[in-house]
Order: sequence, then C-alpha cells, then structure tokens
Amino acid sequence: MDVLEAIFTRRSIRKFTGEPLSQEELETVLKAGFSAPSAHNMQPWHFVVIKDADKLEHIAEKHPYGKMAPQAGCAVIVCGDSEKQTAEGFLVADCSAAMQNMLLAAHGIGLGAVWCGIYPQEDLMQLMIETAKLPKGIIPVGMMVIGRKAQERSQQDRYDSAKVHFGQW
Amino acid sequence: MDVLEAIFTRRSIRKFTGEPLSQEELETVLKAGFSAPSAHNMQPWHFVVIKDADKLEHIAEKHPYGKMAPQAGCAVIVCGDSEKQTAEGFLVADCSAAMQNMLLAAHGIGLGAVWCGIYPQEDLMQLMIETAKLPKGIIPVGMMVIGRKAQERSQQDRYDSAKVHFGQW
Repeated sequence: MDVLEAIFTRRSIRKFTGEPLSQEELETVLKAGFSAPSAHNMQPWHFVVIKDADKLEHIAEKHPYGKMAPQAGCAVIVCGDSEKQTAEGFLVADCSAAMQNMLLAAHGIGLGAVWCGIYPQEDLMQLMIETAKLPKGIIPVGMMVIGRKAQERSQQDRYDSAKVHFGQW
Repeated sequence: MDVLEAIFTRRSIRKFTGEPLSQEELETVLKAGFSAPSAHNMQPWHFVVIKDADKLEHIAEKHPYGKMAPQAGCAVIVCGDSEKQTAEGFLVADCSAAMQNMLLAAHGIGLGAVWCGIYPQEDLMQLMIETAKLPKGIIPVGMMVIGRKAQERSQQDRYDSAKVHFGQW
C-alpha cells in the first residue's frame, strides 16, 4: 500500500475476527515501531506482546476502551525506559512515534489496530504495570490492540484550515 | 512509495538544497498530520508554518538542533491546544502521532525532514511561543524542519529483540 494512502485511510479498528496474527505479521509491526525517530536517537522503547487470553480478558475488564482486546487476540504495550530518556515529554513523544509507525504498518499489511491511551492516567498505568510485570522506571505509554479486521471504515478528511497558521498564529 | 518501505527507510535529514517546497507538497504533509489518531478523537493539534528567513535564522540561532532551518526554508511547529485536550500526556502523544505521519509523508514524496524536539524544554517552548506568537494554552510540542534533500541516508535496522517481551517483562 502506498504510504500516503496508508496515512489517509488508516482508521481505528475495534472489531476483529479472532483469527490470530502470524509471527511474521507481528514482527513486521514491531519492526515498524523500532524504525521511529527518537530524541537524541535514544530508542528508549520496549514492547510487551500479550496474547494470553486471561490477561487480555483482565485488560478488557479494567480498561474502559480495551473491551476488544480478547477478540483481537493480541495487544502490544508500548513502554518507555525513563532511565534511558529522563525527560518524560520526550519519552512520550518517542513511544508515540513508534506507536504511529506500528498502526500504519498494521494497516499497510491489511490488519486492524487501535491505540488505547495509557499514560498519563495513573489507574491505567498501574493496570499495565501489574499485567505486564513492568520493572521500576519502565513507563507504559500506550497499548495497541491488533488483529484481523471484522469491520471496514471509510476514509475521514480531518483537514481543518483554521488549524493551519502561516508565519505566526 | 510503499508504506513499509517508507517506515523502514525514513531517516532524519539535516542537509537541504534550499529549493523551496511547492504549496501542494506542503499541503500533502499537513494533511498527513491531520490524519493521525488522537485521544478521544479530539484532534487538538495546530500547525504553524514558518518560511520567513529572519524567523528561521532566529530559530537556528537559539535552537541547538535547529541550525538547518534556514537552508531547508520551512519549519512547521506542531502545537497542541491544552484547553481541548487537558491531559498533557495525551496532548504530546497526539501531536507526536501527527508529527510522525508528517515525517513519513515528507519522505514518501521525496522530501527530507527532521523532528526537532521542543516540549518539555522550557527554553525551547518559550522560543517557539515568541517566534510563532502562540496564544496562552497552545503548547509547542515539536518542530519539523522540511525541505529538499541535499543528502541521502541509508536504512538503519534498529530492531532489538532484547526490547521485545512476550507475555510479560
């Protein structure tokens, strides 16, 4: 799929068939995450892949926007190492760039995915820390739920010229 | 360009020919920014496009990693509206997803670009607020310097299996 088409047609997918991903598909998506830029090229990200049904059910029960995780069959928690990148604003930016790459890669190979926000919500961060047994200093920034699409969503044009400013605000 | 190729071959470009972008190219890149996902689909971003030579020189003088802005001929400050999205962690994530889309779109149409970090560094935020005359509540998250490439950079494989965790950390 062309990169512009991928960017313009990617939508959040929340309905899945339940058919599992292949290891190759998962690796392509993870490799996309690793290909993001990061502040001072610190690459401070880690990825926790969760496929265990009980863990996905637990996430679905506790995360208000994570109900589709068990049906998707896979969640990837994108985490940042706060010892490697001590400026939390940069850490969130780096992990978000990785997440966006992963969403586009998933869409590009025909999968569906959705970004479920975690950071800075304390309760959701704690849920991820416990579920993935994250060590101290590892911050869960966001969760991608990924699987085979059971819905198609049409392209949405969000361009808003009122939000583009030339020269200054 | 294929989306996976774009993701895997995109690199930060810091050398530019000085030949200006077309309005169509700039709009394609901005449209990519608008196509990012955002928490609760709030779309809290704004984009300030700076082409004025004096302003670009001022940025180059004050931003330690913005020296290439005048030669590129264009900078886009990606800002977040903190009244629209009050959770600053989400605001940074949303603007970073928009930025990553823009970097990939630029690469996909043969342009070069680099993400210069702004938030959370107070001095750089203040520089952007003054240069772009940002109103209160508008947070400069990052700056993209974009132009015509005067360098090619080879693909870099950053995949690190030590940063992928299955089931739990």
